[in-house]
Amino acid sequence: MKELTRDDLDDVARGAAILGTGGGGDPYIGRLLAAQAVREHGPVPLVALAEVPDDAVVLPVAMLGAPTVMVEKLPTAEQIGLAASTLAGYLGKELTHIACAEAGGVNSLIPVLAAAQLGLPLVDADGMGRAFPELQMVLPTLYGIRATPMAYADEKGNRGILDTVDNHWAERLVRSAAIDMGCSSAISSFAMSGAQARESMVPGTLSLCAELGALVRETKSVAAVVERLRGRILFSGKVTDVARRTVTGFARGEARLSGMDSDTGGELLLRFQNEHLIAERDGVVLASVPDLICTLDRETGEAVTTEGLRYGQRLTVIAAPADPRWHSEEGVALAGPRYFGYDIDPVGVPA
Amino acid sequence: MKELTRDDLDDVARGAAILGTGGGGDPYIGRLLAAQAVREHGPVPLVALAEVPDDAVVLPVAMLGAPTVMVEKLPTAEQIGLAASTLAGYLGKELTHIACAEAGGVNSLIPVLAAAQLGLPLVDADGMGRAFPELQMVLPTLYGIRATPMAYADEKGNRGILDTVDNHWAERLVRSAAIDMGCSSAISSFAMSGAQARESMVPGTLSLCAELGALVRETKSVAAVVERLRGRILFSGKVTDVARRTVTGFARGEARLSGMDSDTGGELLLRFQNEHLIAERDGVVLASVPDLICTLDRETGEAVTTEGLRYGQRLTVIAAPADPRWHSEEGVALAGPRYFGYDIDPVGVPA
Repeated sequence: MKELTRDDLDDVARGAAILGTGGGGDPYIGRLLAAQAVREHGPVPLVALAEVPDDAVVLPVAMLGAPTVMVEKLPTAEQIGLAASTLAGYLGKELTHIACAEAGGVNSLIPVLAAAQLGLPLVDADGMGRAFPELQMVLPTLYGIRATPMAYADEKGNRGILDTVDNHWAERLVRSAAIDMGCSSAISSFAMSGAQARESMVPGTLSLCAELGALVRETKSVAAVVERLRGRILFSGKVTDVARRTVTGFARGEARLSGMDSDTGGELLLRFQNEHLIAERDGVVLASVPDLICTLDRETGEAVTTEGLRYGQRLTVIAAPADPRWHSEEGVALAGPRYFGYDIDPVGVPA
Repeated sequence: MKELTRDDLDDVARGAAILGTGGGGDPYIGRLLAAQAVREHGPVPLVALAEVPDDAVVLPVAMLGAPTVMVEKLPTAEQIGLAASTLAGYLGKELTHIACAEAGGVNSLIPVLAAAQLGLPLVDADGMGRAFPELQMVLPTLYGIRATPMAYADEKGNRGILDTVDNHWAERLVRSAAIDMGCSSAISSFAMSGAQARESMVPGTLSLCAELGALVRETKSVAAVVERLRGRILFSGKVTDVARRTVTGFARGEARLSGMDSDTGGELLLRFQNEHLIAERDGVVLASVPDLICTLDRETGEAVTTEGLRYGQRLTVIAAPADPRWHSEEGVALAGPRYFGYDIDPVGVPA
């Protein structure tokens, strides 16, 4: 067991934003929130997934909504605490561990805040190994773990609990609540035992985030990130157009990049729903969910989130393989291109 | 204390539909649901509001949504039981009494079903003395009684609990959930003590429903209803047009009636949102919320609900005074014409 100190948070946020594949929230905001909590409550013990006891009560916490909203309407420590405490009260169980639902600039750091606030250890893992836009899109769903009972809370003090017949219904109902709450809500969902967590989660995500963050800080190299993730470069170019709309509670849109290097002519089209879903070059799909598509600053290697995309940015777009379980039949049904309305098989990254 | 037997239910449903002012659900459906429950579990003890002990735990239950949907997607006994038991579990309290949130063909009978199922007495009262479309529009809101913690449930087994900062937020969040659930949801809300119930509710509503129902059954006379409610006849005519749309989870629309009697020429326009809100004759408002506007069959005196309005029906439209507390400044702010978007003072029924 080690611990997360304030000094670690920059790297974790930086690395998490890469795995966030454009979503998962702005690392700047995530870092501020977590830093404040660690300053107040001290460092957060980080527990390896393999060390979590069978009978642990593990609670993932996250922000749910449109990241475009979260950059203006910041999550508060109170609302995150409220989402966690409301669920703990409803379950009538003592929480023993906090966990990350997904990797992302905000959603890898919100659990640090929650763990610091509640005085609990944080599990070095997450539910997907990346970020996905919808609640049910976590590996625990593939293992039959229920999203509910779940709790959600806004910054005004409104809160709710859901108990649904399946995880899709949980997504549907909490999404509407999040829209009412201003397109952003703190959630605690997928409460599970330590045994379930060890089986269903992706181990080592926070350590990987810290490692990736340090790599970028030290090397400023896109190539180093690609190598570490065993991915590949899809395209390098300048953002020429971004169309973004907040629909059904998500930040949906497309971005176009025009090639800059001699070896990458033409145009790249990125389609996103909070996270990047598809990368197409001149009509040919180069990569798709469930694999990771990440937009990195060409000069610094820093991730650029979908809500941060702007005309004129020089980006390198990379793809990296998702956790292999996402490529199972059930995984592709849950978060493959067809679920998002694209009638294609997944286009993966050759391992 | 007396009790409600199967024989009483027809009259209660018939009378409740009149007080429902076009909303509150179809009396036929309400009667079927309650009759089934009374057949299975026996008659329901009916307790006068004045006899409810101070420390009673009184739980109003109701259906929330668009009545146009509820005529096709019937409420189930299970979902109503689920809404009640979910809230009781969350409150950690033993329920002692069931109550009606509003008067209406379904919403006066659903509590009979719940009381029969749970083996609890029913309070002879309701929260408004009529039906209104939104959750917070009950007299208990005027007394500072909170709508939450509340529970809601659908027929599939999905359920939720809300705990909000005010009753308007409860309406907003439960309305979205009801829309997701198919525009119809069972709710249990405004749990209160016996002392609070005695102060804030309208006494004798179920007895009045039974009395009105018997009156209509025996006399088939609109005039008798008008006299009993100390109301007046606004118009008598034939339905010439009905425009109905399910928007934001409500049945909204307008109905036009063309005068049939020598004394009621011209045209009457009824504007409704589940319930009738405004009655206008040739551009002049004859009556408005918070007073009751009821559409009755000219020949039989039976209430016609807004979802039951059809071309060619011969109706008499009557108005009747609401509980005087609805005419207070706070009452008018909560459910007067301006709340519904009509920039007029309430047009009442001279007492």
